[in-house]
Amino acid sequence: MTQERQAALDYAREHGERFLADLKDLVAIPSISTADEHREDIRRAAEWLADHLRDLGMENVQVIPTERHPVVYAEHLGVNNAPTVLIYGHYDVQPVDPLDLWESPPFEPSLRGENLYARGTSDMKGQVMAVLKAVESMVHGGGGLPVNVRFMLEGEEEIGSPSLPAFMETHRHLLKSDFCLNPDAGMIGLDMPTITYALRGLAYFEIHVYGPEHDLHSGTYGGVVHNPAQALAELIAGMHDEQGHITLPGFYDRVRPLSKEEHEALARLPMDEAYYLKQTGAPALWGEPEYLPVERVGARPTLEVNGLLSGFTGEGAKTVLPAKAMAKISMRLVPDQTPEEVHQQLLRYLEEHAPDDIRWEVKALHGAVPAIARLDTPAVRALREALETVWAKDVLFARIGGTIPVVADLQNVLGIESVLTGFGLPDDNLHAPNEKIHLPTWYKGIQALIHFFYNLAA
Amino acid sequence: MTQERQAALDYAREHGERFLADLKDLVAIPSISTADEHREDIRRAAEWLADHLRDLGMENVQVIPTERHPVVYAEHLGVNNAPTVLIYGHYDVQPVDPLDLWESPPFEPSLRGENLYARGTSDMKGQVMAVLKAVESMVHGGGGLPVNVRFMLEGEEEIGSPSLPAFMETHRHLLKSDFCLNPDAGMIGLDMPTITYALRGLAYFEIHVYGPEHDLHSGTYGGVVHNPAQALAELIAGMHDEQGHITLPGFYDRVRPLSKEEHEALARLPMDEAYYLKQTGAPALWGEPEYLPVERVGARPTLEVNGLLSGFTGEGAKTVLPAKAMAKISMRLVPDQTPEEVHQQLLRYLEEHAPDDIRWEVKALHGAVPAIARLDTPAVRALREALETVWAKDVLFARIGGTIPVVADLQNVLGIESVLTGFGLPDDNLHAPNEKIHLPTWYKGIQALIHFFYNLAA
Repeated sequence: MTQERQAALDYAREHGERFLADLKDLVAIPSISTADEHREDIRRAAEWLADHLRDLGMENVQVIPTERHPVVYAEHLGVNNAPTVLIYGHYDVQPVDPLDLWESPPFEPSLRGENLYARGTSDMKGQVMAVLKAVESMVHGGGGLPVNVRFMLEGEEEIGSPSLPAFMETHRHLLKSDFCLNPDAGMIGLDMPTITYALRGLAYFEIHVYGPEHDLHSGTYGGVVHNPAQALAELIAGMHDEQGHITLPGFYDRVRPLSKEEHEALARLPMDEAYYLKQTGAPALWGEPEYLPVERVGARPTLEVNGLLSGFTGEGAKTVLPAKAMAKISMRLVPDQTPEEVHQQLLRYLEEHAPDDIRWEVKALHGAVPAIARLDTPAVRALREALETVWAKDVLFARIGGTIPVVADLQNVLGIESVLTGFGLPDDNLHAPNEKIHLPTWYKGIQALIHFFYNLAA
Repeated sequence: MTQERQAALDYAREHGERFLADLKDLVAIPSISTADEHREDIRRAAEWLADHLRDLGMENVQVIPTERHPVVYAEHLGVNNAPTVLIYGHYDVQPVDPLDLWESPPFEPSLRGENLYARGTSDMKGQVMAVLKAVESMVHGGGGLPVNVRFMLEGEEEIGSPSLPAFMETHRHLLKSDFCLNPDAGMIGLDMPTITYALRGLAYFEIHVYGPEHDLHSGTYGGVVHNPAQALAELIAGMHDEQGHITLPGFYDRVRPLSKEEHEALARLPMDEAYYLKQTGAPALWGEPEYLPVERVGARPTLEVNGLLSGFTGEGAKTVLPAKAMAKISMRLVPDQTPEEVHQQLLRYLEEHAPDDIRWEVKALHGAVPAIARLDTPAVRALREALETVWAKDVLFARIGGTIPVVADLQNVLGIESVLTGFGLPDDNLHAPNEKIHLPTWYKGIQALIHFFYNLAA
């Protein structure tokens, strides 16, 4: 299949500008899954992808409703003696606030330098489009697909994929595959092709603290009631000790220790203190001093405050003693922690530490178990060779700190292992203003995916 | 002057419904001083009052511009052998958020039971109107004013009266008076006529904490940077010890100890633990255990969180590691603390406790020194008799927790002492949703003010 491979690679190079135009079309749809008002945009993005898959000659293309946002399904089967690849992607995106920090509107794709800026370019419409464009190149350039493929593109990843396990249960017949290709995992850095073998899980909560029945005048009542914002601050402050360890009771009990081998492998990655200082722009690093930075984000659980809100936050000086305070708090989990156990640990912490002069409530927003994958499979070998062919560099094997709930769901519900890669860079501003994708990397990604599919068939 | 007094009291009783209609007109103007978009409403409220004062026969009525919001001035002089009373009031009001907690729109006055609901009814357009209606009753019912009056009605009280000291300096000639009547101090409870002799000062700040250069993905970077929301929570938590004492260095150094006599007098006030539990609806009280609740709000300094904001606070689960966090924090001060010293103490606290993995900044929004007044003056006697005549109850003498910057300014700039009273009740929801005024108390207040002016002339 050397000729077909070369023809597909050539096709991709020749059609790069149109590929980019198609990506711009998709990222212009504000398919934010966290907010109900974008439900119609979510649907539009799903239909756009379904149409695009039909244009590529995919079959049985469907926009399948779930309890919330639909899954786009498509397939191209019938290649004998070749594996079946389940291609996962999500077409939903994160919210865009704070909007005023965007240099160009988040849903008006803007080319600046070598980057395309828009919400979803990197996470992960750009990654989905890289696969679609690799498929297009093989279909229209290479004369056909060398392997069988199924697409499962969901619209709920950014809210924790709540409908996906049930979808997998009821659509087992559509998803039967040898493994899943998941290009949502990104690269360690520019020109550092990466295969990810471990992901952190997630447990996301809202903590509400209630004090007086209504907002009070801070002059008339300041001094006799426990200010809920202060009480919440005290509870949050107590969740870490001075070395950055998390104090929820039993939090580390189920954390698998890092082996000496893994520590040494992680220590070799080009992600030292200077790397994290540069990526974050923080004045200094922070965290468990007995672990490397790369271990702290990849192999250790964390607890973050994602949001805080209480009282008067507008311009000026309002002397209110607020009636309530709210924090969004999430924990990144590592094997063998579970969101359910962490939820119980949070409740225990609050039961033990919350004073009786306030009331509190915890809402569990969503959770995902952590995942670790095997590296000695034909799919990982095919991907490794593909990445090394295009970049002419050794592939890096990484644990990443993010969470991809579908990876654990596929393992648990269907017994399907995922192969994790992607062409996003650490400075792509995921979940932040000015999200972008680096186009030279994206184009290399398309080439690498073409190699990958041909390698699989070889 | 017994006849005139009686005629004025009768006039007030006969015109009660129109008085209420006039109050409704004034509170319908959304003269919020904290937000720039209400500048025009502020001006409208000032003009409304100027017109009203002209209608009452006041002279030299002026709307005098300041750097921000104008002062309404009016006078009625020429009564020989009678004191000159400077009548202070403010026509600006607090913001109205959270708007969704109002049972009727804040600027559409609504009568429910014995109360009139609207922003500003109690704090303090209702109090200003009580004085105006007492004046009207004396002018139109009693045949003239028995004393000389000057009005100084400002539009910046809710933002700390920043323009007032300069205004006093440049308009000394207009303000020359024997004392100031300030009806912004309220009552301890229903049917508990009150004269206030001490006010707490205020020092209001915004604390900004900055961490990474931009919002980060909490999965990719959680564990290596100090979350600014967490760091802010830690700093706030450290500002009180476990007994509710404030830990800013030197914070209590200048606090005058309470005398045994004052402790005993305050202990006799009908404001016990049950009273504060009822007023606040808090599950339990909180604060310095060695002081009575009434001492904690009246005679002890406090530190309150007035607002908290960081990261994602909308609906759903956004896994952001925020780049910054903000708290609005204010201290209520007692003699002899000053806002400037407390500012320095806050800076010292942050210098000593803020870690070097974040940056921080303090903005001082405004301050007011605390005040204590003499009780052995003719004005206090005249007011005491007036209140006791109308309510047939002993007057209570109170320290209140709130701040009225003008009291200290009048003392400092012009050497004028203030007499503090008012007809607001503790459950009037000042600075909170559903602010209201209790109309039977308001009408009694008008009667008491008529007595007060005639008592002064006697």
